[in-house]
Amino acid sequence: MDIFKYKERVDEFLYSYFTDITKGKEGIEFELLNNLRDFTMRGGKRLRPLFMILGYWLNSDEINNEVIKASSSLELIQSYLLIHDDIMDESNLRRGGPTYHKMFNYTPKISHDLAIVAGDVANSLAYELLLSSKFPEKNLNKSAYYLTEILKFTGIGQAIDITLTLKKDKSASDVDLVHEYKTAHYTINGPLKMGAALSEFPDVDRIDEYGIPLGKAFQIQDDILGLFGDEKVLGKPVTSDLEEGKITHLIVFALEMANEDERKELMKIHGKKGIAQEELNLVREIVRKSGAYDRTIRLMNSYLDKSLEAIPKIAKDQERAKTLEDIAHYMVKRNF
Amino acid sequence: MDIFKYKERVDEFLYSYFTDITKGKEGIEFELLNNLRDFTMRGGKRLRPLFMILGYWLNSDEINNEVIKASSSLELIQSYLLIHDDIMDESNLRRGGPTYHKMFNYTPKISHDLAIVAGDVANSLAYELLLSSKFPEKNLNKSAYYLTEILKFTGIGQAIDITLTLKKDKSASDVDLVHEYKTAHYTINGPLKMGAALSEFPDVDRIDEYGIPLGKAFQIQDDILGLFGDEKVLGKPVTSDLEEGKITHLIVFALEMANEDERKELMKIHGKKGIAQEELNLVREIVRKSGAYDRTIRLMNSYLDKSLEAIPKIAKDQERAKTLEDIAHYMVKRNF
Repeated sequence: MDIFKYKERVDEFLYSYFTDITKGKEGIEFELLNNLRDFTMRGGKRLRPLFMILGYWLNSDEINNEVIKASSSLELIQSYLLIHDDIMDESNLRRGGPTYHKMFNYTPKISHDLAIVAGDVANSLAYELLLSSKFPEKNLNKSAYYLTEILKFTGIGQAIDITLTLKKDKSASDVDLVHEYKTAHYTINGPLKMGAALSEFPDVDRIDEYGIPLGKAFQIQDDILGLFGDEKVLGKPVTSDLEEGKITHLIVFALEMANEDERKELMKIHGKKGIAQEELNLVREIVRKSGAYDRTIRLMNSYLDKSLEAIPKIAKDQERAKTLEDIAHYMVKRNF
Repeated sequence: MDIFKYKERVDEFLYSYFTDITKGKEGIEFELLNNLRDFTMRGGKRLRPLFMILGYWLNSDEINNEVIKASSSLELIQSYLLIHDDIMDESNLRRGGPTYHKMFNYTPKISHDLAIVAGDVANSLAYELLLSSKFPEKNLNKSAYYLTEILKFTGIGQAIDITLTLKKDKSASDVDLVHEYKTAHYTINGPLKMGAALSEFPDVDRIDEYGIPLGKAFQIQDDILGLFGDEKVLGKPVTSDLEEGKITHLIVFALEMANEDERKELMKIHGKKGIAQEELNLVREIVRKSGAYDRTIRLMNSYLDKSLEAIPKIAKDQERAKTLEDIAHYMVKRNF
């Protein structure tokens, strides 16, 4: 099965959903929801709904409109988290447009407050959408329960990430923990389980063995693209991870493996604003020469292997096994 | 029935709940959850859980531990909203202690970010607690659905409130709308309906006729106490509503009914930081003399009457009618 073909149906659903919820609204209520529409529709790969659809398909052949509806709730969750993240990161740009708190013509303080509230509203809308989709109540509650788990993990992961900047010696296991909490559960494993719960997949937690390592491999690939990717394909400056001071395996391994001079260079550039092309090239060279790049790739592949090994435990037939395998390979080979 | 006797059981439940969720946790995860415990346990009248218990009792005699557990989720929701509100209001004090974002020893920016995240985590914990309580799946789903509704109303109400400060001529209907969205649904009507859904009360939406006007009456009484209450009983400075520039019926009516000089005085003091006793007395006098006080009381009583009139439609016996009546009177006569 090609899950990516459902992206269009998710987009179509979201389009009509936002038309519905903004209809007849006025004043700030309209403005808040309309900005949420623009922010949500402006872009995004819809990965989380697609993984939820995939999870559903593990135990059911029919991807009907209710599956699309329930899965689309994860795009509202994505908007909720991005809106709050962009406040914390003080970012101005997202998905090729302004961040949510930059979409208003009010004072910065009021716009900022409205963005906190709008994130919170998007969270309620997501639960509402999920809970109002038509499935057996038991499955629906289980799926919503998994959503609470995902969001708990994501929140704790975000808190770890925020305070990690204060920690002197960051280890690979710190990075791994953030990847598990912030990415693996949220982007891949949680959505798979939410979908699987809806189709009464037996013993949903077995999916962890596939979803968590794949989520970690995916995040490592994301970090690699963030340093070595093609700016044009990526759609964001390839210096942004570095300028943000993002703590990745590439950086942690390089700090550990490079010689003293290179270490100092790397620490000087990591987290610096306005990184020049030569500095970027220097970091890339240090990461490659020190062996950090190869070690990161090996780590990523070991997670990929783990997820592949788990497939027989969750795929009920050859077609499903093949799809899970293809997706796993795709997630670590994509260049966007 | 005396719903207030259940406050202790809610507190006991929350105490053991927080012991559970912090057990074995370390680092920032522990810190975040432990601060959430302190913040939640430090005070609060537990009104929302109590109204949820009352809603449940409308169609069931037995208040068992699962009812207490499900209802306690609303205290996590309360912490979530207060944490986010206190960030927006830049408040330092809450429930006789520091606001959540003042509980950390990090930089203001990091503490602030952690508070956004902790609010979000509290939201997930609330849904998790509710969805894991033991009730027929259909009822649970409906109750959680009402929670999404409440939070949507509260968010939109908060956005209206934030932008109302920018509006030149605030009318009584603006105030009324904020009261309906931010208080009536959230504090009284929503919790009643969430509880009623759990005990399969037939046609839950009938409760609106009782809960919404009572919620509005309650908020008006809250505003009256915020200007005329006893600081010692209230536990907060009686000038704080005024300094915050809170827009209430008392203020809107007074601006409409006072003479030109008094109007100017009132506008000068409303929203000013550091209000002296004479200024407070002056505002009180203007509000009383202009007739705004009496008009506000009349409005409050008309909402109270509306809610009392609706009781026969939702009380299945005399005992329930009496309880709903007593609570309604109590909510507008309390002095704390």
